[in-house]
Amino acid sequence: MDEIGVALVGAGRMGAFHGSSLARRIPGARLVAVADPAPGIAERLGADRAYTDPAEAFADPAVDAVVIAAPARFHADLVVAAARAGKAVFCEKPMALSLADADRAIDAARAAGVLLQIGFNRRFAPDWQAARALLDDGRLGTPRVLRSVTRDPGGFDPSRVPPDTIFNETLIHDFDALRFLNPGAEAVEVYATADALVEPGWRERGLLDTAVVVVRFANGATGVAEACFEAAYGYDVRGEVFGSGDMATMGDGRRSGTVFSGADGRIVETARSDQELLASAYVAELAAFVAAVRDGTPAPVGGEDARAALAIALAAAQSVRSGRPVRIEEVGG
Amino acid sequence: MDEIGVALVGAGRMGAFHGSSLARRIPGARLVAVADPAPGIAERLGADRAYTDPAEAFADPAVDAVVIAAPARFHADLVVAAARAGKAVFCEKPMALSLADADRAIDAARAAGVLLQIGFNRRFAPDWQAARALLDDGRLGTPRVLRSVTRDPGGFDPSRVPPDTIFNETLIHDFDALRFLNPGAEAVEVYATADALVEPGWRERGLLDTAVVVVRFANGATGVAEACFEAAYGYDVRGEVFGSGDMATMGDGRRSGTVFSGADGRIVETARSDQELLASAYVAELAAFVAAVRDGTPAPVGGEDARAALAIALAAAQSVRSGRPVRIEEVGG
Amino acid sequence: MDEIGVALVGAGRMGAFHGSSLARRIPGARLVAVADPAPGIAERLGADRAYTDPAEAFADPAVDAVVIAAPARFHADLVVAAARAGKAVFCEKPMALSLADADRAIDAARAAGVLLQIGFNRRFAPDWQAARALLDDGRLGTPRVLRSVTRDPGGFDPSRVPPDTIFNETLIHDFDALRFLNPGAEAVEVYATADALVEPGWRERGLLDTAVVVVRFANGATGVAEACFEAAYGYDVRGEVFGSGDMATMGDGRRSGTVFSGADGRIVETARSDQELLASAYVAELAAFVAAVRDGTPAPVGGEDARAALAIALAAAQSVRSGRPVRIEEVGG
Amino acid sequence: MDEIGVALVGAGRMGAFHGSSLARRIPGARLVAVADPAPGIAERLGADRAYTDPAEAFADPAVDAVVIAAPARFHADLVVAAARAGKAVFCEKPMALSLADADRAIDAARAAGVLLQIGFNRRFAPDWQAARALLDDGRLGTPRVLRSVTRDPGGFDPSRVPPDTIFNETLIHDFDALRFLNPGAEAVEVYATADALVEPGWRERGLLDTAVVVVRFANGATGVAEACFEAAYGYDVRGEVFGSGDMATMGDGRRSGTVFSGADGRIVETARSDQELLASAYVAELAAFVAAVRDGTPAPVGGEDARAALAIALAAAQSVRSGRPVRIEEVGG
Repeated sequence: MDEIGVALVGAGRMGAFHGSSLARRIPGARLVAVADPAPGIAERLGADRAYTDPAEAFADPAVDAVVIAAPARFHADLVVAAARAGKAVFCEKPMALSLADADRAIDAARAAGVLLQIGFNRRFAPDWQAARALLDDGRLGTPRVLRSVTRDPGGFDPSRVPPDTIFNETLIHDFDALRFLNPGAEAVEVYATADALVEPGWRERGLLDTAVVVVRFANGATGVAEACFEAAYGYDVRGEVFGSGDMATMGDGRRSGTVFSGADGRIVETARSDQELLASAYVAELAAFVAAVRDGTPAPVGGEDARAALAIALAAAQSVRSGRPVRIEEVGG
Repeated sequence: MDEIGVALVGAGRMGAFHGSSLARRIPGARLVAVADPAPGIAERLGADRAYTDPAEAFADPAVDAVVIAAPARFHADLVVAAARAGKAVFCEKPMALSLADADRAIDAARAAGVLLQIGFNRRFAPDWQAARALLDDGRLGTPRVLRSVTRDPGGFDPSRVPPDTIFNETLIHDFDALRFLNPGAEAVEVYATADALVEPGWRERGLLDTAVVVVRFANGATGVAEACFEAAYGYDVRGEVFGSGDMATMGDGRRSGTVFSGADGRIVETARSDQELLASAYVAELAAFVAAVRDGTPAPVGGEDARAALAIALAAAQSVRSGRPVRIEEVGG
Repeated sequence: MDEIGVALVGAGRMGAFHGSSLARRIPGARLVAVADPAPGIAERLGADRAYTDPAEAFADPAVDAVVIAAPARFHADLVVAAARAGKAVFCEKPMALSLADADRAIDAARAAGVLLQIGFNRRFAPDWQAARALLDDGRLGTPRVLRSVTRDPGGFDPSRVPPDTIFNETLIHDFDALRFLNPGAEAVEVYATADALVEPGWRERGLLDTAVVVVRFANGATGVAEACFEAAYGYDVRGEVFGSGDMATMGDGRRSGTVFSGADGRIVETARSDQELLASAYVAELAAFVAAVRDGTPAPVGGEDARAALAIALAAAQSVRSGRPVRIEEVGG
Repeated sequence: MDEIGVALVGAGRMGAFHGSSLARRIPGARLVAVADPAPGIAERLGADRAYTDPAEAFADPAVDAVVIAAPARFHADLVVAAARAGKAVFCEKPMALSLADADRAIDAARAAGVLLQIGFNRRFAPDWQAARALLDDGRLGTPRVLRSVTRDPGGFDPSRVPPDTIFNETLIHDFDALRFLNPGAEAVEVYATADALVEPGWRERGLLDTAVVVVRFANGATGVAEACFEAAYGYDVRGEVFGSGDMATMGDGRRSGTVFSGADGRIVETARSDQELLASAYVAELAAFVAAVRDGTPAPVGGEDARAALAIALAAAQSVRSGRPVRIEEVGG
C-alpha cells in the first residue's frame, strides 16, 4: 500500500503531539486532516483539511485511518463511527469508560473489518520492550510479582478531573503494562486503596489522587500498580518483573547519560513530562499502527486489551468503594 | 560503665555471626559465655564459659547482657527469663509469635527495668538510615506510598519452615521498615495475598513462599511489603519512600563498586546472602545495644516496635486466610 | 526558505544512514539526489536522481545543499567543488587530511559564501550537549582535566585502514570533543603513545590500533584522548570534564533503562555500534545543518573547527614517530 | 603465634586512624605503644606505653611490629631502625623519597629478616580487589589502557606541601594501582604534565596541584594517572582497566545505596574524605599485615613495590621539569 492518509481527531496536548509525529516522523503516513474545534491547528500541523466535526473526517475519502485523541468520554462513540466509515482506528486510552461501550467499539471494528489499536504506549517504550523480550526468551521464567508505577508531576486542575480518573486514565496504563509483562494470564481479583493526599480537600469532592492496586492473576502472579497525580521530582514511570527465573526493572527516567558531580553528590537529570520520557514510545506506537494498516497485520495492542485493562480499573474503583477485594467477574470482565 | 559481659544464647547461623561480632568488633563488650547445645562453639568464638542451658547464662554474674538468637518459638520465654535475671536483652526478631507473648516479654523487661532491644537490622543499614535522615530533615515530606522488599536466595527446607513464616519471620522486617520510614503513624488495616509459587507442592502443606501485603497507615500512607523465599539472582532487600516532598529508594545491593563491561553489557555483582548484604547493619545494631546498655539510654528499637510489627504480620496471615482486608484491632493490635 | 533539496555524495555505511535520515526524519529537507557508483541506492533511499559522479549533483539546480560522506581522502576536493557550485556543504569528518587541504576547503566555502558544517556528531549527542550546558552555566568552572574515549567494537580490515587512521579518523572526534568542552582554549602541545595491540602483526605494516594522546591547552587544562579499534564489550564513547567547579561525565552507553538481575549480578545492555549509540546525534547534526541553511545562520561547527582538530591529529602522529611532545605550531596549526 | 604487640609511630591524621583500627578492629593484634610527641594520644588510643621517641618503641620487647605513619621524609630511616630492632614493619607510603633510601630500607628489612609492608591501601579496597580478581580470572585479558585517578577535596596548606608532593605522595597510589592492575609488567617510560591550577600563585613557589601522567609499560599497555589537590565535589578515587578481554571500572564512591529523587534529578551522596571512602581498605591492609606477621607469609605489597612506584614518581617529576618523556632507567629505576 502507498502512503496512507491519516486524520487526527482531537488536537489537545496529546493529540497535537501525535499530529506533529504524523506530520514529520512516521514513515508511510501523511497527516491529511485534523478535526478539532480550535482554529488554526490543522494549518500549524501542516494538514490540508481542517474540520470541526469528526464526522467530516470520517466521511473524507482521502482519510484511510484516524487517530482519536479527543477527551476519554467520547472515545467509544468515535471508534464506532470511524469503524463504520471503514477507517482504521488508533484510539488513545481509555478506549471506553464502561465494558458495554468497550464491547460496542470492539464489535464495530470487527464488523467493519478495520484495524483497531489502543494507545498503550508503554508497550512501545524501549525499557518495556526489553523486559518483554527477556520474558519471551525465558530468562525471567514465570512472573511471580510484578510492579508498575505512574507518577505525574502535578499541576492538575481538580475541577476538570472526573472521579475514578486515577483508575480509568492513569492506572489503566499500569494495568495494561502488568498484562503485557505477564503474557497469557488474566486478572482474577483486584484490591485497591486510594485517597486524596495531594489536596485533602479533594476527598469530599470524590477525587482520589493516590492509589495502590493489587491485581491477582490466574497464574498465581500478583501485580502491584501504584499511581499518584503529583511527584515533586517529575514524571516517573517504572516497572518490575520478578519471576521464577530472574528479574527485570524498567524505567530509568534519566534525561541523558550525563552525570554531574557536585557538592550534593552525583546527580542525574530526570525527565519532567510524559512527552519527554515517552517521546520515542509515542512515535513508535503510531509507526506500528501505520505499518499494521499498510501490511494488513493485526494491531499489536487491540480492543480486547483495552477491555481487559478497563475491567481491572472498574474492579479497582469498586474495591475502594466497598473496602474489599473485587473479582473481575463481578464487574462483568 | 566498663566493658560489659555478654552471653550469646543460640549459636546457629545468625547467632554465630553475632557471636563473632561480639568477640571482635563491638567496642565496650566482651563475649563471656555462649549457651548452645552444639559442642565447641563457645571455644571457637573465644568465650570462656560454655553452657548448654540458657538458664545457666542468665544465672552467671559475669553476664551483664544477653543476645538471644535461638529459634523464634523460644524467644518470648527467653526474654522473660533473662529480664527476670536482670540482664539487658537483645532479642532477634520476631520477639514473639503471639501478642500475648509479646506483652509478657515487654512487661518482664519493664518490671525488671532492663533494656530490651529487637534485631530489626534494617534500621541500622546505611541506606535505611540515610532515608530516615532525609525524612527527619523534611526532604521527603509526609510519606504517601512506601515499599519494602525482601527476597531470599532460596534453598529453604520446607519441612523446617512453620506456616506463616513468611509473615512472622521474613516480612516482619519489612513491616518494621515501613514503620521506621513512616514515623509516628500506626498501621490500621492490612490486606495480603500469598501463595506457594516456588514449590507448588508446598501449598497443600500450608506453606506460603511468596507474599504481597498492603498496609494502610493512620496518616493516609499506604505501605507495600513483598517477600519471596527464592530469588534466582541472590539476596534482595530494597525499599522506597515516596512522600509529599521527594522520594528515596534504598537497597543498592552491589557487592562492590566495580563495573564489568563485557559481551552481555555492563555488570555489577550483587550480594548473595543477608550476612554479606547486611554485615555492617548486624554489627551496628549490636554496637548500638552495647552503647545503650553502657550509657543507660533507651533501646533504639524496642519491645513495642516488635509488638506493632507482629500485629501487622498476624493481620496479614488472617487476611490471606479470609480473603479480605483485616483491621489491626481485629487481631488485638 | 522552503524545503531545501539535498544531495548525498557517497552512500556507504555512514552515507546510507544520513541518506535515510534525510529521506524521512529531517524537517525542511528533501533528499533529491544521490551520487554513488553503487546501483540502486538512490532508489532505495527514495531520491529521484541517481548520479555516479558527484560533479553531476553539484551541477543540479534542484540541489541546494550536499552531504559529503565519501572516503576521507576525497573530502577536501569535494568540499571545494561543491562550494564553487554554490551548494551549502555538510562534510563528514575529517574534512581534510592535511592543513593545506583544510585551508583550501575553508577558503572555497568562504569565497563562495556557502555554509560549511563538519560531522562532529558528538556535539549533538545529548550527553555532550548537557555537559556543555553545565559548562556554559558556569557549574563546572574552568576545565582542569578533560577526557574523551572512543572504542570501536572491532572487525576492522587492516588492509583498508590507512596509517594514522586512529588519529585522523577516530581520535579526531575526541580532539573536537575536548575543544568543545574547553571552549575558547586552543591546543598548544600534544604527546601521544600508540601501538598495535589488537593485532601485533599490524605494527610492521605501520598500523596503530590503540592510542593515548595528551593535549595541553593554552588555559592550563590537560585533555586525555584514548582510542582503540577493538573493544570486546561493544562501542564505547565517553567523556569527562573536571573543572574548578564540579565534574561532568558523559557516555552512559546503555541500550535501554532495563536492568536485568540474574546469577551474574545486575546487567545493563550496552550499545553495540555507533549508529545505535549515536543515532539521535546523527539526525540532530543534519537537522541543525538544514536549519542553518534555511535560516542563514552560521554552521554550529565549521571548517576552522575541523582544521583545529586535524592539527592535533597531525601533532599526535608526529609525537608517536618522534617519541616526544610536539607543539601545535610545529605542524603548522 | 599469639596476639602480636604493635607500636604506632606517628599519630597524626592517618596514624590516629590506624591506631584506632589497631585498638579495636584488627584481630590478632594489640596496640601496645604509641610514639608521638603529642601528649595524651597513647592514652586516648588505649595503648599502655606512650613514647615520644620512636627509638623507645623499637627497643620495647613488648613490641613485635610497628606501624610507621610519621611524615614521609622520616619513613626510610624509621624503617631501617625498626628493621634493625627486629620488628616487622608496616610503613605508610611513600616508603622513601629517593631510590637510594628505598634500597636502604629494603636491604635493612631483608638483612633483619623482618616483614616489610607498604600502605598502598587501594590494593585492599573492594573495588580494586574485584578488578584484580577479574584480571586473575582472565576475564579482562591483557591490559591495553589503564586509568587511575585521585582527587582530594582541597583545603591544603601550600606552605606545608613540599614540591613534588603530587607525585611522591598522591600519585604514588595511582602508580602502584596501575602496577597492581597490570601484573608482571614494569613501567618503561613516563610523560607528565603538571600545573598550579587550584591556586595560580603556587606555581611560582614550585608547587603543582594538578597532574596527568602517562606511563608506558613493557607489555605495551599504557597507564594514565591523574591527580588534583582540590575537587569541589569531594574525594574521588577511580580506576579503569581496559584489556584485550573486557573492561572493569572501579571507584563507585557512593556513601550509601540510597538514591534521592528531587527537583534537581536523582542524587547519590558521595564520600567526602579518604577515611570515609577507604575505611575498609585501611582496616584490611592492617589486618593483612598482622596476619602475614603471625603466619610468617610474605607481605602482600612490599618494599620492591614501593621502589617501583617511587621510580615512576621520580620520572614524572623529571618529565615535568624537562618537558619530555623520561625513561625509568634514567632515574635509576
